Amino acid sequence: MATRVRECSIADALAVIGERWSLLALREVFFGVRRFDQIQRNTGASRDILATRLRTLVGAGVLEKVQYEQHPPRYEYVLTDAGRDLQAVLTTVREWGERHVTEGEPPTVWRHSCGAELATRTVCVHCGEELRPGSLELIRTRWLEPA
Amino acid sequence: MATRVRECSIADALAVIGERWSLLALREVFFGVRRFDQIQRNTGASRDILATRLRTLVGAGVLEKVQYEQHPPRYEYVLTDAGRDLQAVLTTVREWGERHVTEGEPPTVWRHSCGAELATRTVCVHCGEELRPGSLELIRTRWLEPA
Repeated sequence: MATRVRECSIADALAVIGERWSLLALREVFFGVRRFDQIQRNTGASRDILATRLRTLVGAGVLEKVQYEQHPPRYEYVLTDAGRDLQAVLTTVREWGERHVTEGEPPTVWRHSCGAELATRTVCVHCGEELRPGSLELIRTRWLEPA
Repeated sequence: MATRVRECSIADALAVIGERWSLLALREVFFGVRRFDQIQRNTGASRDILATRLRTLVGAGVLEKVQYEQHPPRYEYVLTDAGRDLQAVLTTVREWGERHVTEGEPPTVWRHSCGAELATRTVCVHCGEELRPGSLELIRTRWLEPA
């Protein structure tokens, strides 16, 4: 029997950012760490894997590789608009990790521009209510036909 | 030179949910699909990898494996509280994928309990403002000392 797989933007997104070292490299760029050696050191990724992941992220338009020195040529990685738009993803993943995986105090603390220590909630843009389990109903889902 | 790696709840979270098929399996459970064969069919994961990922998720307390039939013994996967708390993660990943990766109409559409088609934003719990690039300042980060 031919089977069909659910078409899904989560799967699409994970094709770009779904590898462990991709999201950790992006975390470093959000920290302001832009150079290969420093990203490698701060994440603990192997150089080969990190180079591959960064190439994918540049290819997908999430990071841009910018030359900042001519002699010798040196490059740094900066977020594109699509990359900056990952802030909510990184934040929701981090806060979930703090609540359910990390033991003890959160290792990273950010201050929001309003002055408070950052804590977030994800809300419906229409009513402003926080997303809660059981508050969603599926309207439409599509399926990929077998190739 | 001994190096130290950033301590990070994103890395902790990804140790649990960071594999591609883990998040896609969880997506199916959020869709109400709870049985191994259906999860396997809808995601397109190989049976071996899916079984491994589900075991990890059960071991980490994100899913619970519940027997729903005695003869023959049959099981389904249900979300724990920690699993249900992944709704914001799945939603921010999906919406980012819709904006930056998926071509055409979003494949999946949900309705919020307020009646509107679901679209979300991630806001500061203190001031209610949406998280924006450049609105965060780092207060504290910790480092793992080399073993």
